[in-house]
Amino acid sequence: MHFEDLRYYGRQVIDWVADYLEHIEQWPVLSQVQPGEVRAKLPKSAPQEPEPFEAILGDLTEIILPGLTHWQSPNFFAYFPANHSWPSILGDLVSSGLGVQGMMWATSPACTELESHVLDWLADLLGLPEQFKSASTGGGVIQDSASSATLCAIVAARERATAGQANRSGVRAPLVAYASTEAHSSVEKGIRIAGLGSDNLRRIEVDRQFAMRPDHLEAAIAEDRAAGRIPTIVCATVGTTSCTAMDPLTEIGTICRRHGVWLHVDAALAGTAAICPEFRHFQQGVELADSYCFNPHKWMFTNFDCDCFYVADRNALVAALGIWPEYLSNPASQSGAVIDYRDWQVPLGRRFRALKLWFVLRSFGVRGIQEKIRQHVAWAQELAEWVRQDPRFELAAPVPLNLVCFRLRAGDEANQRLLNALNRSGKLYLNHTRLDGKFTLRLCVGQTSTQRHHVQRAWELIQSFAEDALR
Amino acid sequence: MHFEDLRYYGRQVIDWVADYLEHIEQWPVLSQVQPGEVRAKLPKSAPQEPEPFEAILGDLTEIILPGLTHWQSPNFFAYFPANHSWPSILGDLVSSGLGVQGMMWATSPACTELESHVLDWLADLLGLPEQFKSASTGGGVIQDSASSATLCAIVAARERATAGQANRSGVRAPLVAYASTEAHSSVEKGIRIAGLGSDNLRRIEVDRQFAMRPDHLEAAIAEDRAAGRIPTIVCATVGTTSCTAMDPLTEIGTICRRHGVWLHVDAALAGTAAICPEFRHFQQGVELADSYCFNPHKWMFTNFDCDCFYVADRNALVAALGIWPEYLSNPASQSGAVIDYRDWQVPLGRRFRALKLWFVLRSFGVRGIQEKIRQHVAWAQELAEWVRQDPRFELAAPVPLNLVCFRLRAGDEANQRLLNALNRSGKLYLNHTRLDGKFTLRLCVGQTSTQRHHVQRAWELIQSFAEDALR
Repeated sequence: MHFEDLRYYGRQVIDWVADYLEHIEQWPVLSQVQPGEVRAKLPKSAPQEPEPFEAILGDLTEIILPGLTHWQSPNFFAYFPANHSWPSILGDLVSSGLGVQGMMWATSPACTELESHVLDWLADLLGLPEQFKSASTGGGVIQDSASSATLCAIVAARERATAGQANRSGVRAPLVAYASTEAHSSVEKGIRIAGLGSDNLRRIEVDRQFAMRPDHLEAAIAEDRAAGRIPTIVCATVGTTSCTAMDPLTEIGTICRRHGVWLHVDAALAGTAAICPEFRHFQQGVELADSYCFNPHKWMFTNFDCDCFYVADRNALVAALGIWPEYLSNPASQSGAVIDYRDWQVPLGRRFRALKLWFVLRSFGVRGIQEKIRQHVAWAQELAEWVRQDPRFELAAPVPLNLVCFRLRAGDEANQRLLNALNRSGKLYLNHTRLDGKFTLRLCVGQTSTQRHHVQRAWELIQSFAEDALR
Repeated sequence: MHFEDLRYYGRQVIDWVADYLEHIEQWPVLSQVQPGEVRAKLPKSAPQEPEPFEAILGDLTEIILPGLTHWQSPNFFAYFPANHSWPSILGDLVSSGLGVQGMMWATSPACTELESHVLDWLADLLGLPEQFKSASTGGGVIQDSASSATLCAIVAARERATAGQANRSGVRAPLVAYASTEAHSSVEKGIRIAGLGSDNLRRIEVDRQFAMRPDHLEAAIAEDRAAGRIPTIVCATVGTTSCTAMDPLTEIGTICRRHGVWLHVDAALAGTAAICPEFRHFQQGVELADSYCFNPHKWMFTNFDCDCFYVADRNALVAALGIWPEYLSNPASQSGAVIDYRDWQVPLGRRFRALKLWFVLRSFGVRGIQEKIRQHVAWAQELAEWVRQDPRFELAAPVPLNLVCFRLRAGDEANQRLLNALNRSGKLYLNHTRLDGKFTLRLCVGQTSTQRHHVQRAWELIQSFAEDALR
């Protein structure tokens, strides 16, 4: 290890990153390159001899940057955000530098203990129930993504429903899962990976606000039960991807309890809002959940990857995912006094991801995070009001938080033209979904550096491009 | 975003990391803290107000460092290494700073294209077959770990064996998997997660060198087939976790081809050695594999997480893992001209992990990597020779590369005492496994900063502590 190189080039990289972020608005938000354009600039084979670091940094600027879509731009409004912040970048840098493995408590105790601790902090901050905390029967763990959290929940639910039989002899009886028609594609992906099969995922109808209808859920469960199938898991969503619809957790949870079905709650984006008490009502009923996740790597200023996954009964999770080979045995694990997070996730290895979360929580303070979340929500509400006031447009869904779904009343083609023109301009980046079968634009306010004037300018651009799209 | 904070504290963190690595040998390699000791020093709840960054850095030194097991220490010889290097740390820092999402080509084209490109470079460097490259029918992708790669291989194999039926209606017929008794626990974990069930994993006997016996494999496949079960996947290992045993790929692959069974090759550690032509023979027959993985985050100086996973037929993988919701549809994906890596993995989101690999390959050059790998292997061979010459010890397995498995001839208790004493000393860190039922010490030479004198001193310590253990 060349420590002087790390110091010398480390400073250069820090400055390079700071320069990039400081001037990020000069780039078209959506990359304008064509397929293959980046690769065409790269040499056919790896270099035999070492290259100077300056050459690498140069290529980063010349070749890589034009090929990026700039997720950290204040004019990035597409998908859900994946925002970050300087304390998070530095927390992640410490993790890279330490290079420890947190697969078990023994392989770096602080890596496990800081993670349990910070996830307990967050459980309190979000008003999550006591059983999700490590001093109780459950606990939290960092997963790479809500998709992986959902898969873990499905496998744990599957084993609970079959008393461990699926793990032993494979999936046999039809095990049924339930999610609304608006639930994220990761639910179906997880159902497939876990061997349940898409045909056994019931897509429950939604109401006018795109929230799951509990009466339909209960009817579906009853029907499956009557047919000898085993209702296994309900995946409810707090803040769906299309339009941040809120499934009613209290009613859904009550049904799950009645039928002994695992309730997993995916609050990937919206969970962060619960750090503000006034937004916590969206996840009322979460105390009925068996598992829950939200992504600080979406809206809480923490680098990807960082999904916080909570379970009410950690034994159910470890029973589903734990395997104990000899080469991993150690006194601490055998004592039962510690958490070995390898048994809480798909991979074995894990990096020290709690650091960036710890850095963010301490650098912002709870108040600092609340302030930014409230701003994002307020600006999205303003935008919704502007949409309402323009007769050419309509809101396509309620706006509970920071996502505005809207469209021209003129139909799909006009909206598709509008979206293409906006994104091609490079001045901002939105994406689309379909609501009530109609092509709908999505604008989510959640970047760390987004200010009110960026949202205002976005609306001006939308209005201006709408004129062309309607021509 | 406060750019000046990023610059100012970024320098401090770079220096903090460099200081840590420069003086890493002052710490006991294996952390000496007791369960709960780290948490006891942390406040019960997150701070309401922002804290100065200096306080965080202070706590990092005071609270976190004593709770770490120092994986980057030159005296870390346990498990397999998870080594890193300064170019990798800085590549990862750029990834954190850019904060882009590579879930689809369109969400940051350079993120996808650099990954495909660097994985093609590596396929050439390791002498992997043409079909694993992106210009052919297959391609490579970065996964977080070999565990996840194995799971993806299992799911793809499952769908190929059932013509997509398992994804549609769930696992029904008994689908059988095969791996040697020495295969990694992630194979069984993957088999369980994918709904096949542990009972349907045949653990194939090994020969005296702990390598899978192809005759037993063929007999097991024939027996399953005769009983109406569906042989689905063989997971072969190049470099097992216990003792880097090498399953014979040519014979295994020929059997797999004959029976239409998917062959996955796990070369997590040993794959890196194939960058040196003289070690490439260990994976002779890899051209018969349907999928293959190795971990640059183990032995190729690249931060966790970075597992390179290759498939010969990318369509089989995408058919198993692809899902296309409206909110992710975009012109580039619909054109079919691009790779969307979200369909090659469990999670949806993904960070720009190819950067660190690109930084490492260019900063070291192929020659620089080869040189270090050759040194590690040479020092391990020297150590093996020293073990052979000490009549109190015996080698427990062949030493094909950089892992030496050895034990006192005096039996399990003496070896357990020896291991405990060594690790308690803080001067080095080894771990253990069982071979032929006997407690066996493992010493793997693979840290970036390990030099010959560290290995020599390790052996002196082992010899010296052995005297006590034998008393």
